[in-house]
Amino acid sequence: MTSTLITSIGELVTCDDSTEDRLGIRHNAAIVITDDGISWIGADTEAPPADQRIDLGGRTLIPGFVDSHSHLVFAGDRSAEFAARMTGAPYDGGGIASTMAATRSASDDELRLPVAARVAEMRAQGTTTVEIKSGYGLSIADEARALRIAGEFTPETTFLGAHVVPPEWRHRRADYIDLVIGDMLSTAAPYARWIDVFCEPNSPYAFDADEARTVLEAGRDAGLELRVHGNQLGHGPGAQLAVELEAASVDHCTYLSDADVDALADASDTTVATLLPGVEFCTRSPYPDGARLLAAGVSIALASDCNPGTCYSSSIPFMIALAVREMGLTPAQALYAATVGAARSLRRSDIGRIVVGGRADLAVIEAPSHLHLAYRPGVPLVRALEGL
Amino acid sequence: MTSTLITSIGELVTCDDSTEDRLGIRHNAAIVITDDGISWIGADTEAPPADQRIDLGGRTLIPGFVDSHSHLVFAGDRSAEFAARMTGAPYDGGGIASTMAATRSASDDELRLPVAARVAEMRAQGTTTVEIKSGYGLSIADEARALRIAGEFTPETTFLGAHVVPPEWRHRRADYIDLVIGDMLSTAAPYARWIDVFCEPNSPYAFDADEARTVLEAGRDAGLELRVHGNQLGHGPGAQLAVELEAASVDHCTYLSDADVDALADASDTTVATLLPGVEFCTRSPYPDGARLLAAGVSIALASDCNPGTCYSSSIPFMIALAVREMGLTPAQALYAATVGAARSLRRSDIGRIVVGGRADLAVIEAPSHLHLAYRPGVPLVRALEGL
Ligand SMILES: [Zn+2]
Ligand SMILES: [Zn+2]
Repeated sequence: MTSTLITSIGELVTCDDSTEDRLGIRHNAAIVITDDGISWIGADTEAPPADQRIDLGGRTLIPGFVDSHSHLVFAGDRSAEFAARMTGAPYDGGGIASTMAATRSASDDELRLPVAARVAEMRAQGTTTVEIKSGYGLSIADEARALRIAGEFTPETTFLGAHVVPPEWRHRRADYIDLVIGDMLSTAAPYARWIDVFCEPNSPYAFDADEARTVLEAGRDAGLELRVHGNQLGHGPGAQLAVELEAASVDHCTYLSDADVDALADASDTTVATLLPGVEFCTRSPYPDGARLLAAGVSIALASDCNPGTCYSSSIPFMIALAVREMGLTPAQALYAATVGAARSLRRSDIGRIVVGGRADLAVIEAPSHLHLAYRPGVPLVRALEGL
Repeated sequence: MTSTLITSIGELVTCDDSTEDRLGIRHNAAIVITDDGISWIGADTEAPPADQRIDLGGRTLIPGFVDSHSHLVFAGDRSAEFAARMTGAPYDGGGIASTMAATRSASDDELRLPVAARVAEMRAQGTTTVEIKSGYGLSIADEARALRIAGEFTPETTFLGAHVVPPEWRHRRADYIDLVIGDMLSTAAPYARWIDVFCEPNSPYAFDADEARTVLEAGRDAGLELRVHGNQLGHGPGAQLAVELEAASVDHCTYLSDADVDALADASDTTVATLLPGVEFCTRSPYPDGARLLAAGVSIALASDCNPGTCYSSSIPFMIALAVREMGLTPAQALYAATVGAARSLRRSDIGRIVVGGRADLAVIEAPSHLHLAYRPGVPLVRALEGL
């Protein structure tokens, strides 16, 4: 088994919670990794011998980003819809149908190759774990296909048959929900770890609290764990439903009442509030107040929501810069949310930190400190460490 | 002389003003370049033979970005000041003194190597022309040195001895201005094309209208062309002073009165308003209204202001995404401002467009259309075409 010593680390961000900012920063440190993961962390001067050596030249080493919310399996192009929205057209979820049509008519390879390109693009920006949802198939065969393809790239696959009510079912909502929790779920479940629902009473395309509960409970009965899209377009029941059902995460949280925040704080061991500021950027919406959530004791995560409609960005560094500029997080809080926080939202303890025994999912910042993630917005400074 | 045919261009953005959106977009086009520049533009099917061939595989080809405002010659690190500002500390220009101290104490190579890295970083993001200012030396020798080093990388060098009043002159402002327009200017002038001044009555460190006029007129007498930093921290005289003195550009324009906008519109053939939205992002300031300027007939440019204090971003794609999200520009208007607009602010007609006889300064977008610059914020999609 080959061992690799990584040395000359300008700043080692372990995210091991050992310091007040929770980043567990070490200077003059080195680490050793093997095929089994991280085997040693210590002072540069006490590093053991290893088969290979990587000199980081003073760069920063961080846990690879955990992007816990994405919709990468899709075909078609919606850049013109984006441009129209920037000149005033509102977002209400309706555009999903155009992606659905393109996705259904794509061949397997026409779906697979863009997913591979998007995952590679993420990796090139420091993301080492990605969750991928279905939700642009919205038929039995197309949802199962999306999850099968997603599963080629990640174990964190999420069945999102309840993304929107597709056009052909618009006048038969109840029947569509029966389909989702019936044959669509049973066909999709073998390919999915998670089930998710777009719970948004403010959109005619999405699902209200009762509908969402029906979908999530059926998913739980089928052995899936729960996630929720909630509180994106206005105040709604998503966050409290997620807490009630002990979902791992409620995502967006753009509009939260004090009661929602209290509920999330009480459930901080169970349910993470995942913030997706790229969506607010790309839809010109108000940003959630991340500082308010942290002050209340809510567990938060930061993810991309990479998708063709509301945020076609795969860049976690960009999300960190937005979280600092727009959501009141410090750079440390934002980085923690994009690593440990997002790992918790996936109920994973083997990723998001640099600890002995953990996975060697690492990323390098081309800078002397993690502050540069927010200090240098838009600059591609981060890459996943490959080929160790 | 070697000729290169570039073909399979998904979208060719010429910025030649031939279409309503001024981008002069052509589909199914090809271009030929030689050591002398662009020699042919036409239909893919009619392309002449060439020595080499580059197949863009449907990607977008644009003029390389012209970054008409940067401060790349500096030493030291101000990431901690940035983090403090994000938690509430205001920006008033005072931090420049810390960069000044680090810059003065750096060796020539300690200054030169980071400039080379920053220029390479810009090029890797699609920038093919960069203007570089002095302004962190603020002594006769240190300003001349900064310009000498800047001149190794670009002909667009700008003397900014009047960046701030340095600490040792704070109680002798008039004497400092005498120095700037005396020995500092005469020593710097051989290395500079431009002179610039931070005209900002709202900062105790910067210069009021009379001081700024004195500096600019002295520069003009020494053969330099004029640029102005103005209207950044509040309403002020910068914009109208720039118009009065026929400066090529007034930069920032965050706070403009109706009279300022009218003056800039009347002077649109002479004076460009350069918008620097990365500064508003990094200082959490309100954004200028780009749509208002365009509606009034003002000529605008978009640049990075890459500098260690108020915006350490070198990414023009990020500036374009901000201009669309925050300043009311369309993707086409933002791209035009970052190419032709910025070239005009440097009084250059040989860059910023793809035209026969122009320089072959080109960049490729990893996407089927220029809309993706704004549609995919934070994602590193653009690179300059190298090694043709
Ligand atoms: Zn989503
Ligand atoms: Zn500047």
